[in-house]
Parts: sequence; C-alpha cells; structure tokens
Amino acid sequence: MKLISTNKIFAGEQRVYEHESQINQCSMRFAVYLPENTQSENIALPVLFWLSGLTCTEQNFITKSGFQRYASEHGFIVVAPDTSPRGDNVPDDANSYDFGKGAGFYLDATRQPWRKNYQMASYIVEELTGLVKENFPVDEKRMGIFGHSMGGHGAISLHLNNPEIFKSVSAFSPIVAPMSVPWGQKVFKGYLGDDQTAWANYDSCKLVEKHASDALILIDQGGADEFLEDQLKPELFEQACLQSGQALRLRKQKGYDHSYYFIASFIGEHFSHHKKELGGAI
Amino acid sequence: MKLISTNKIFAGEQRVYEHESQINQCSMRFAVYLPENTQSENIALPVLFWLSGLTCTEQNFITKSGFQRYASEHGFIVVAPDTSPRGDNVPDDANSYDFGKGAGFYLDATRQPWRKNYQMASYIVEELTGLVKENFPVDEKRMGIFGHSMGGHGAISLHLNNPEIFKSVSAFSPIVAPMSVPWGQKVFKGYLGDDQTAWANYDSCKLVEKHASDALILIDQGGADEFLEDQLKPELFEQACLQSGQALRLRKQKGYDHSYYFIASFIGEHFSHHKKELGGAI
Repeated sequence: MKLISTNKIFAGEQRVYEHESQINQCSMRFAVYLPENTQSENIALPVLFWLSGLTCTEQNFITKSGFQRYASEHGFIVVAPDTSPRGDNVPDDANSYDFGKGAGFYLDATRQPWRKNYQMASYIVEELTGLVKENFPVDEKRMGIFGHSMGGHGAISLHLNNPEIFKSVSAFSPIVAPMSVPWGQKVFKGYLGDDQTAWANYDSCKLVEKHASDALILIDQGGADEFLEDQLKPELFEQACLQSGQALRLRKQKGYDHSYYFIASFIGEHFSHHKKELGGAI
Repeated sequence: MKLISTNKIFAGEQRVYEHESQINQCSMRFAVYLPENTQSENIALPVLFWLSGLTCTEQNFITKSGFQRYASEHGFIVVAPDTSPRGDNVPDDANSYDFGKGAGFYLDATRQPWRKNYQMASYIVEELTGLVKENFPVDEKRMGIFGHSMGGHGAISLHLNNPEIFKSVSAFSPIVAPMSVPWGQKVFKGYLGDDQTAWANYDSCKLVEKHASDALILIDQGGADEFLEDQLKPELFEQACLQSGQALRLRKQKGYDHSYYFIASFIGEHFSHHKKELGGAI
C-alpha cells in the first residue's frame, strides 16, 4: 500500500492509500480515517465501510460529509473506497455517468469486457476488508457498512449477502430496487447480461425477500430528492422488509435533496446507529 | 439578486446568489446560510462573513468546512462571498494562482487594468453588507468576520479598518504580514503599485500598530502548515499586538496543515468565539 496523502482532522488522520488490486486487476485508491487513539497498542476499534454514489471517488465523502467529527467522537475507523476500477487499461463507457468508471455498482460483472476489472463486490468483501484488517487496529467482530445512493444499494446488498461480515448497516437515499428502476436495469444488463436470476443477487428487495438479517437497517431518504420517484422507490423495500420480517427504520426527511448537504445533516445519527448495533463503546 | 441554488442542511437553507455588483462592475456570487428560524417574523440574527483563501470561490467553505452544524446550533446567518471579481470582461493573470481571479486579496486596487473590477474591500464592506442587511433578517449590531489564509488577512484587516461594522473577528492560518512575505508583496505591487504607504492600509501588522481594536482576535494556526514560515509568520502579528495592546488569542494547533481538514476541526470553536464577542444568545 502506498500512502497518497494524510491530513490531521479532529485529532485523527484522514489518509488516502493506493494499492494494486488482485481482484480488480488495476490500481485502486481508498480513504481511511484513523481516530487519535489508534496509535496506542492493544486497541481494536470498530470499522465502518462507506460506499459512495455514482461519479464519486474516495474523495467526496471525506471532504464533504463532515463524518470525521463523529468518527473521532465515537472511536470508529472509517474506510471509503473508490466506486469502480480505474486506469487507462480499464474499459469505460465515456458517454455514461451511470455505467463504467465511477459506476461499479458494487457487483461482480460477468460480461465482457467488464468482467476482468469490474469485481467491486468481491473487492470490497474480500480484498478491502482483508487489507484493512491487516494494516489497521480493527476489531473484525465489529464491522459495519453504509453508503449513499448507488453506495446505499451496495451497503444494503453487501450486508444482506454477508451479514456475518458487515454486522450493521445504514444508507442515505439508497437504490433499493435496482431491477425495477432505469439506473439498475441499465447496469445489470450491461455488467450481468439478460439473465435476471443473476440480477437478483444484487437487488436488495429480492435479497431481503429470500432472507432477512438480524440487523436493524436504518435508511434516511430526503423528501425533496430529485431521484425519489424514478430511481429510488423506498416503498418497494419497505414492503419487502414487512413481508420478510426484516427490521427497518425508514425515515423520510422533509425538504432534503440527494446531495451531501443531506448526508452531512444526519451522518452523526448514523454513527450512533452503528455504535448501538455493533455493541456500544470502544 | 438571482437564486442560483438552495439546499436544505441542518434544518436550514444553504443558498447561493448571483448579483450585478456596482462596485466591482461584474456579476458576483455569494453563499448565504439561513438557519431554520429565519422564516419567523420579528427575528434579527447575528451574521458572520467568511472570506476564503487563494483559488477559492463561494463553494469551498460551504461544501468542506461543516460550518452549517454550528450556524444552525447557535443561530447565525453566514455569508461567504467569492474571492475576486469574475467573468470574461474581468482582467486576469492566467499564469498565477496568487494574482488576478481567485486572488482579490480583499483590497481596492488602484493600478490599471485592475482598478475597474478589483475593489474587493469596498465590495465586502459596503455592497455585500448592504445587500445582506436588505434581504435577510440580520441584526446589524452583531456582525462578525472570519476567514482562511488570504481570507484571514481579509478578515483581520477589514475588521481593523472597520471595527464598528465587523465587531468580532477570527482567522485560520491568516496572512497577517503581507508586506513581509512573497504572496503579499506580489499582489500589493500588482494591485497598488510601488508606494508602500498604500500597502500599509491592508497589512494587519501595520494596522494594529496604528490602532488596536476593542475585539479579542482569535487565530488558529496549524503547526504542520506548509506555508507557515514563508508566507504566514504569525509571530510578527503577535509582536505587533503585544506592542499596541491588541487582545489576541493565537493558538498553535500541533500537526494540522493548511487545508479545510484543519478548518473543519476548529470551526465550531470559532462560532463560540463570535457568539461570545457579539453578545451571546439570539
């Protein structure tokens, strides 16, 4: 791992690393926030993985959300990966903001030419968690996941597929029903082909119908979100959770939109949620 | 005034406006944060003017500092102007990040071709304060000013020149001795010419030597700031304040650099400072 940058914030360190991903077969960057006390020996902190939305890199969350205040206060390590493979040798769809680079969708592509590099589900679940456990003082029994929009989809679907790894989960404005909305249909067809049984592995509504997790899922959804009706449809997930007995706290936040201004307003409460779900104090 | 954008954050509204500046003779943008309770009638809130550093626009502070949490909590209106005149008809030095557009330095230029548009001191002190008082529920007896780097220079020098307008003041990593450092010497020569008596009107060290203000000036300076030794030299201002009896709280913050990560870590304490200086509760 190569250290790209480090900046002191709220007494901890906001770092960005680059590494050669074996799974995505390209260089990948991720951000990690280390609270002040990670320098002590014999400490093991809970860790949260933040997954960002379409067009983002590892930078958006660390510069715009203000999360470091809460991570510092509650003693969380926070890891924020990039949203897709990167580099000149990685295929892209230059005309799309919602497919290719910046739009990995946290799945493992099976179609050419995407399958070689676009393995974001395995990258997050296996490689990134492994790197983090190896390099930072993490309590691997207390790992949670959260995200925004496409990253909210990633957080919920990776949790439901790996509840023993990511024990707590929350999301802002998540794409919970990708099979039922244009963003999801486009990327699933592109990365996975026409077989909709493959799509269902990454659709949170379908996943929760098959098996509820033991976690309480927290979702914040802005009432003035410009993508609410066409792309997000939280009511479909609410219905699926009801049917499967999945615990869900879906909060409609009046007047808030899809931006980081919304995330900044409630990110502190998401830390409280994860702290409670993961078993309290550091 | 034309509303460019508005986003709900921490129950208030983060807005950006554009207007035709009479003083700068071009279109100017500024951001304004309105806490939730500004919709009530018969309310007059304290207001803080934030001045940004080199290369910034009105966007940097509102997306990166996390200030809205504290403005919401303490009930402050916060105004953040752009850092220079803008537009195709405004002269620029395209090869410099530290002169021309993005580098107005909060002074009134006297040299050609800059004097027509680069009137940032008068723009802030007269036109922007006027616009704000006219359009928002401001208590004009409780106006303060703060900023970062070039904007810290702007905040302290505009306060010292107008203590009856901006009654409270604070700064992050300010350029307090522009006549003694390369950044200041370059812009003063460019905008004001060779006469150093004109420069002294915008040099916080010289200003405070002439007349201390009644305010307590709060300065936070990162100890790992890459510009500390060559461009900032807070010890010169400390010395000048000592000699003139100016109240100063200069805090060296170990390990912090010149970035918004530093600002985000301490901006909450600056709101507490201004609240105390401006006379407490809303």
